[in-house]
This record gives sequence, structure tokens and C-alpha cells, in this order.
Amino acid sequence: MTSLAAHTAETSADTPQNDAAESSRPVEFRVSPEAYRHWRLSFDGPVATLTMDVDEQGGLRDGYELKLNSYDLGVDIELYDAVQRLRFEHPEVRVVVLTSGKDKIFCAGANIRMLAGSPHPWKVNFCKFTNETRNGMEDATANSGQTYIAALNGTASGGGYELALACEHIMLVDDRSSAVSLPELPLLGVLPGTGGLTRIVDKRHVRRDHADYFSTKAEGLAGKKAVDWKLVDEAVPRPKWDDTVASRAAERAATSSRPADVTGIVLSPLDKQRTDDEISYRYVRAKLDRSAGTVEITVTAAAQRAGTDIAALHAQGADFWTLAMTRELDDLILDLRTNELELGTWIFRTEGSAAAVLSHDQLLLDHADDWLANETVHYLKRTFKRLDVTSRSLLALIEPGSCFAGSLLELALAADRSYQLFGVFEDVDPDAEPAEITPGEMNFGPLPMGNGLTRLRTRFLDDEDALAAVQAETGHALDAEAADALGLVTFVPDDIDWDEEVRIAVEQRASFSPDALTGMEANYRFAGPETMETKIFGRLTAWQNWIFYRPNASGADGALLKFGTGQRADFDRKRV
Amino acid sequence: MTSLAAHTAETSADTPQNDAAESSRPVEFRVSPEAYRHWRLSFDGPVATLTMDVDEQGGLRDGYELKLNSYDLGVDIELYDAVQRLRFEHPEVRVVVLTSGKDKIFCAGANIRMLAGSPHPWKVNFCKFTNETRNGMEDATANSGQTYIAALNGTASGGGYELALACEHIMLVDDRSSAVSLPELPLLGVLPGTGGLTRIVDKRHVRRDHADYFSTKAEGLAGKKAVDWKLVDEAVPRPKWDDTVASRAAERAATSSRPADVTGIVLSPLDKQRTDDEISYRYVRAKLDRSAGTVEITVTAAAQRAGTDIAALHAQGADFWTLAMTRELDDLILDLRTNELELGTWIFRTEGSAAAVLSHDQLLLDHADDWLANETVHYLKRTFKRLDVTSRSLLALIEPGSCFAGSLLELALAADRSYQLFGVFEDVDPDAEPAEITPGEMNFGPLPMGNGLTRLRTRFLDDEDALAAVQAETGHALDAEAADALGLVTFVPDDIDWDEEVRIAVEQRASFSPDALTGMEANYRFAGPETMETKIFGRLTAWQNWIFYRPNASGADGALLKFGTGQRADFDRKRV
Repeated sequence: MTSLAAHTAETSADTPQNDAAESSRPVEFRVSPEAYRHWRLSFDGPVATLTMDVDEQGGLRDGYELKLNSYDLGVDIELYDAVQRLRFEHPEVRVVVLTSGKDKIFCAGANIRMLAGSPHPWKVNFCKFTNETRNGMEDATANSGQTYIAALNGTASGGGYELALACEHIMLVDDRSSAVSLPELPLLGVLPGTGGLTRIVDKRHVRRDHADYFSTKAEGLAGKKAVDWKLVDEAVPRPKWDDTVASRAAERAATSSRPADVTGIVLSPLDKQRTDDEISYRYVRAKLDRSAGTVEITVTAAAQRAGTDIAALHAQGADFWTLAMTRELDDLILDLRTNELELGTWIFRTEGSAAAVLSHDQLLLDHADDWLANETVHYLKRTFKRLDVTSRSLLALIEPGSCFAGSLLELALAADRSYQLFGVFEDVDPDAEPAEITPGEMNFGPLPMGNGLTRLRTRFLDDEDALAAVQAETGHALDAEAADALGLVTFVPDDIDWDEEVRIAVEQRASFSPDALTGMEANYRFAGPETMETKIFGRLTAWQNWIFYRPNASGADGALLKFGTGQRADFDRKRV
Repeated sequence: MTSLAAHTAETSADTPQNDAAESSRPVEFRVSPEAYRHWRLSFDGPVATLTMDVDEQGGLRDGYELKLNSYDLGVDIELYDAVQRLRFEHPEVRVVVLTSGKDKIFCAGANIRMLAGSPHPWKVNFCKFTNETRNGMEDATANSGQTYIAALNGTASGGGYELALACEHIMLVDDRSSAVSLPELPLLGVLPGTGGLTRIVDKRHVRRDHADYFSTKAEGLAGKKAVDWKLVDEAVPRPKWDDTVASRAAERAATSSRPADVTGIVLSPLDKQRTDDEISYRYVRAKLDRSAGTVEITVTAAAQRAGTDIAALHAQGADFWTLAMTRELDDLILDLRTNELELGTWIFRTEGSAAAVLSHDQLLLDHADDWLANETVHYLKRTFKRLDVTSRSLLALIEPGSCFAGSLLELALAADRSYQLFGVFEDVDPDAEPAEITPGEMNFGPLPMGNGLTRLRTRFLDDEDALAAVQAETGHALDAEAADALGLVTFVPDDIDWDEEVRIAVEQRASFSPDALTGMEANYRFAGPETMETKIFGRLTAWQNWIFYRPNASGADGALLKFGTGQRADFDRKRV
């Protein structure tokens, strides 16, 4: 029974309409408000309202209807775009009210038909992206003075309630029918996939026995009990709903740190070329090698140094190198993760002037109180965080002409391994400057990982002296010998060994079990303290991976396919 | 291809010789040194030497030979017994030297043939038990003044190196052939299953890029490089080996907190009756209900109160109620976990005198500096920790005549939900005392969970006031109304509702996906901070669950079955 179920689950992985990697049209993450099918953004002074009104027929793939404000990846791509634009294009916004355009339903969560028909990697990648978007909402609240309020004007179930959990304040209409619920376990035999379990106990401090009961009660809880158990912050009768939402928004807006009288910038459409073997933007390009299973990613520095006047950032807006490069890298990561599952190793290179990179870093850090500089650095932080949770092996190659300096040095620090050439390539350019890396201020605080520590501090977890030794070299270019002595790079082969050593590393990576690599990398990348974020990506994701994969969830008799049929799932009852 | 592989992996779950649950003979955890087949214990004053010398033909199941000091569950059951006896029977021991009785090999880790032929739940449960044993070695070092030293007189690979990682000091013979390694990923397509990844970066602070390289290099590292990368603490030439091991042991012994001139107690054989539907000991009995999928576990208090003289503990030894009950509960947990996979809900009751329980607690806590009292409390702590990581739903039923007080209240606090009867059962005994629970000193510190916090503090994560309110009731019996008001129990049904409410809870639990329940419980039980322990059981275990389950590891063309055949595994290369 279970083996038959496993067989079916696997077969569904080959259904073309569901498998982005095998579909002719890659999933596209670039979108803008004019093209939204599922969301409406409206503005009233410092309060923005983000209204979810999903187009049932607007699914990213065929085979399901997005009923009851349920969502698929396409819906979430628009949400991510809205969250980003609110930060960059709308500095006047201090509160974002998240609500629904439907009667009686806020959001029913991820679409079940979509999940049931999706191959395993799609499900996992979809959960990862939606998690990152919700973390991004919390990041906006914490770091941009844009507080998210969930105005649940109807039932929020599953991923719908998890979306609310990413907000700082949850209001639920008290009308004897609207409830919050996590019906995944009782109805679908899986876990809430976007941080619900973690946020309930670790963010909202719901008691674990209450959490247990709540998560097994498909219809959820409402009214006073939902408030008493801390599942929502307030239950508001419908007659008082509009006024109460408005006053909560006004209260939060009044305490925001967001500056007054500033003007946003425009996140103009990203210029991107994509062929079957190359994806390129202005500062980022990627070469896809399907036979080797690799992507060679090159990030280019700005052509010129930045000045010291922050007005240049505002004048250049989305053309400012750091922001432009970050947007490109962000889009590339999302594209590759979703569309190129078999390219298991990403190889990072940089090229250009380290001084140009560092000057852009410096301008941003010297004006950390400028809202746009602040947004740019936090966006860079979130983008590098995506790398940390990407289930691909990451290598960095540090060669002559590269610019692993400051912000771009994080690429090497995020990598599972880095190789820095000792000396130069004699055949190519014997007179070149040797490969160097340059620590910068960006490496010592502004760009923490999900565990709350910088990549350098995580690298030298027990070793304050090692960290101090690197910090003493801030702004200094370090050749291979110096970088090696400081513990900043993994290997420093010379010209003679370079090609073979790199080739072996890449070939080895391609020969190993992709699953085991993913598990190993997820464990090694996050030493030290844990946070809600690392719990969500490290622990919850792993459990969900396993549960999704088991026939009890995804088999022909599993809960996902039986959902809505009136038949019960047939479970293998062994506890593992 | 992959689906066929999944089919094969599943089919092997039905191979009788490997599936304890379907075997006629349950796995037995009770053992004693006279019966060891795989280990030798020898003593030289304060230094014990624990020598691994695995009997190749001594596998717990048929179908594999335990070559190269590889182990199966049976080998680890003996190790667990030895670690326990060292603490209780050998208070004179201050250092335990862990070494091998074979030439050139310390330990090759878990036996691959055993793993490849084992069903998924067996693999996961095996890893859990071995993890607990290794955590127990670290607990002995931290809390008993018994420091473990790994004397690697030959290669330690995979689980063999992980065993060394659980020691405080790792010595590797420097002989140009002996190495430490984690070959799981390159050779088997799985992760090291007993905490290796976590201990490398979080305990030994090996740099993550070094860890990455090391874990992909099947032959491992040796000598100076292993020391430089912090993988071992010293590499010792063979001529100096014996002297160096002896002097490290002497150094550690000299700094131990273990008291001098004390006499151990004997861990006499546990009296246990086991039938198909009941497991019973002196103070613990369990009723197995296969149709309901439940185990009803009743823990009985001592018949009499303990006195105030600690000499009684030493005189009674293994008959002292706390220790006797703990040993029984420990054995029961291990038995049920391994042998009764389909009994997914454990229902805890207690019976007897709360005063008797509290008096035993008090005697132990009033003499916390007594080595045996200390050992007993730490053993109780470790046993309750086993419950926290047990993949079964845990319910506690608090009824008239029960004694959920102090140490036994932890059973209710460890439960996913607790039900306390409001009032009495009118039909049974209208004049009974109502059901009560009693907080005791044991609930406020001595019995922390793996996250380092007490169960009460984890329960009231954000709420110092709630915790203080409970602490103010130390020693006071609380009826259902009072316990409910303090947030100590989940539900307080009265006589009229009790049967139905409990029945529904149990039936519901049996109807849900066992996988999703396991995942949910693992997430809810550990709110708050993370430790190496919670990372190992929460994160690493979840990844390993998934990886083990995937065809890339366990399928017919997966790495586990291809190992040693000379053929390469055929991997689905999609990254998830």
C-alpha cells in the first residue's frame, strides 16, 4: 500500500505542467502593480492597505482554481513585489494593513489542489519562497518602520493564518463565523509550511498544549478564546470593525520611525536576458552548464567609485550600483532555485574594482540614517540570506581581477568553500595583480545571517582573536597567503594546481547525493545561536520535507490527494 | 527509477528479521557486563577503560556481520549499560578512556549492511537511541565528574568518529594510516546520524568550510591537519601512545569533582514482565491496546514517605523509589519506542501518595551534594528528556488518587496535553478527594529539557509572572480549578464530560497522519532557545529522516544498497 503510494507520488513529479524545471516557460519573478492579478494596493497617507483578492482563474499553472483566496506561487510573487515596493517606492507608508477583498474569508492558505499535484521539489521551494516573503514583512516592521497589521475580515486558515502570524498585530472579526485555524495536520496530514508552528510558540508564546489542541482542530478558534490563547490580539465585532482597524493603524503609524516628507524611488523594470544557457543582467550574469550541473555566476563592480554625497543615491535610485546589483542577484537566485533544479552547484566570481565596491558600501554606511541607504543595506542583507537557505552547493573562486571586497566578500563567506589563487595565472597574465580579498565594514555587522550573527562571527564562532585579526585588516587588500593565514578562505592553490583542484571539487559535488548535500549544508551553514528564522528554515523545513515526501501525505491514498474526496486517507500507522 | 527504488525501500520494511515490531521477539534493553559481547570494562583506580571489541557474529539481527568494530543497536545497548553502570556502580571513576580492542581500527560506525536492510523507522529509532547515549556521555562529563577521553588507536570513521566527538578530548594515533572521517555523504548518500555535523561546528568550532571539505573526503584527515582543523585535540605517535593516554587520563582525573572514598551501588537486574498486551515492573506498568493504538502507562508512588537521612538512599540503592521508578520508566520508553511502532499515543496516569513522591524528591534535593542523589536526579532528568524526543503523542490524565506531584508532575508537563478531572467521578467514589497536582522543587530547575530550560519555563516562555505564580504554590495541592487558572493543565472536564472528551482526544490522535503528528510535536515541544541537543534531535534528525527516506539513499539504486558493490548509486539529481 505505502509502496504503491510512494510510486504514485514519484510519478506525479513528472507531470509536465507542474514541473517548472521541465516546463518550456520558466517561472518569472519580475512583476509590477499594474500587472497584479491577485492584490490591490491603496494608500491613505501613512497607511497602505494591501488587499488580497485572488483571481480564481489566475493560477500560475493549469489544473487548479484559486478558490477562497487560496494562493500559489504566482500569488506570492505579487505579494513579494508589493512588500518590496512599499519599502522603496513608498517611504511615506508607516503601516500596512493586510486584509481581504472577499466576503467572509481572509485567506484559505496554499491551494491544496496545487500542492497535491506538485512534485516534491516544487512544494519545498514554494514553501521556502513564501517563508522568505513573510520574514521580509517582519523585517520591514523591524527595520523600516513599516508595521504590518493583519485585519482578518473573515476566516484565516492554514497559510492564511500563517500570513497573519507574520504581522505584528492580528485583528479578527468577531462574527460567530470567522476563525483562525491551522487545519493542515487534521485535514491534509502535513505541517503548516510557512512558519506557523514556530511563530505560535516562539513569537506569540502560545502555550504548547494550547498550540497542540489548536493545530488538531480543523475548524480553528474564534472570538474570546482565540484572544485568551494569544492566537489573535483582538476580536472585534463587525459594527466596530472599520473604526477599530483605522485606529490601530493610526496608533502604529504614530510610533513609526519612518521619516516624514521624503520621496520614494521607482523600482524600474529589471533588464534581463534569459536563454537556455545564460541569464544576464547589467551587473550579474550566469552561465548555465547542464552537463556539469553548475551555474557560473559573475557579479561585476560599478564602473566608477561612488562619491560621498548621499544625494547621488536618491538621484540614481534603482540605478545605484548596490541596489541594481542586489535586485539582479535576488531575481537570479529565485529564478535558478525554481527553474533549474538540476544545476546543483553555483560558482561565484566577481570582477572589477574593489575600490568601487567599497566606495558604494561606504556611502551607504556613512548615511545609515538615510531611509534609502537603510533600505538598500537591508535588501542586500535579505538577498544574501537567500543564499544561506538555498539548497545548492556554493563555491567562490577568487582570481586576479576579482573584487571580493566588503559587501561582495559576503559571497565568498556565504559559500560552502572558497578558493583563492595563490599568485597569478602565468599563462594568462603574468603581470596581473594577484587575487586579493578586502574585508570592509559591511562584513562586521550590517549583513547578519538568519542566526543573528555576521558570517564572519559564525565562521569564527569561538574565536574573538581571529575575528579581531580580520577586523584589523578592514580596508586592506589581502593576497592568498594573508587571507589563508586569517582563515578567510578555504584553499589557496597556485597556478599549477588551480584548474585541477577546482575541477575535482566541482565534479565531486556533482557526484554526491543531492539530498545529503542539502542536509549537510543546511547543518553547517548555521552554527551558533538559533532564531525563529533558523528554526523555520532549519528545523521546520526539514520536517516538512520529510512529511511531504511520505506516502501518508503524497501517496495515492495519502491525505493530500484524498482531501475533498470524502474518502479518508489510508495511513501507515508506524511512528517514526 | 526512483519510484522503483522507493518501492524496494518500502518492501524491505516488511522483511521480518529486520522489523522489531513484527518480529516475535521484542528487542530487550536490559543487559549487564557479564553478558557483554562487544565491550570490555576495566578499572585502574580513577581511570576506567571502555574497550570496544565488537563480535562480528554478534549482531542483534541476522543478515550482517559487524566487521571493523561497526555497531548495531545491540552494541549500543551494551554501551548505554556501561555508561550507566559507570555512574552508579563506580563512583571512584573520574575518567573513562574509550578505545578499541582491534588493531588499526577504532570504530567504523554503524554497520552499513544493517542500515541498508533496515526499515525506515528502525533506522530513525536507532539513531535516536545512539544519540541519547552519546548525550549521556557528555552528561556524565558535565554533571558527574566522569570525563570521557577518546583514545583513537586506529581509524574512527562515521559513527566511530561521532562517538569520539561525544568525548571531551580526542587523541588520534599518528601512524600514517589512522584517520578520522565522516564518509557518510560521499559513500552512502546520507548524513552522519549521531550528531557529527552539529558537534563539529557547534562543539568543536571547526570552521564550516573545513567541515564541508572534511565531510566530503571519504578517507578523512589525520595527523597535524586533523589537529590544525580542530577535528582532534592531538595526534600522538605510536611509541608515545600509551604514556600519553595515561597522562591525559591522569590530568583529567586530577581535576574531577568526583568525591573520594565512596562506594557504588549495584544496578540489580530489573524485574520485568512482558506479554503481548502488558509490560509491568514494580512501580511502572503499561497496558498495550493495539486496536486503539495506545499505551496506558501508570506510574505508582512509593508505598511510604522517604525519611530525611540520605543514608537510606545508599542503603536502598537501586530499590530507592526514585531510582527504581526511573529505571523502569527508562526501560519501558526504550522498549515501546523500538518494539511498538503502531502504538502512537501514550497515556500517562499516576497513582499513590503525592506526599510520598515529594518526600523522595526532597531527600534527593536536600542532599544535592551527595554523589548518589546527584546521579539519581540526573538520571531522572535524562529519562524525562527521552519523553520529549519520543515520536509518540503524550497525554496525561489527572484523576482522583493520582500523584502528579514534583518529579511526577513532569509527566504531565512533558505531555502534549493534560486533562485534570474537575471534581470526582460520582459513580466511582463520590467521597474521593478531587484530582490534584502539586508543584514541587523538582519542577523549577533540576530537570531541564534539552533546550536548557525547565518544562515550566518553556511552557510560560514570555511570562515571568505566570511562572512566579506557580512557584508560589510549591508544595500546595491544586485542584482542577486552581491548576487551570495557573495554566498548568490543558483541560479540566467534569465527571459528565470526562469520558467523551478523553475518548475523542485519543480517537482523533489515532486518526491523524502519524508523520504530521511527529513533526508537529517535535516543533511544539521545544520553544525558546536551542542547544546542541535540540539541534541534533530537532534539525539533524528531521533532515536525516528525509534523506534516509529518499530513493537516493534507500532505493534499489540508492547509495546504501550500492555501497560495497563497486557500482555507483543512480541519483535523482534534482535539488530540493
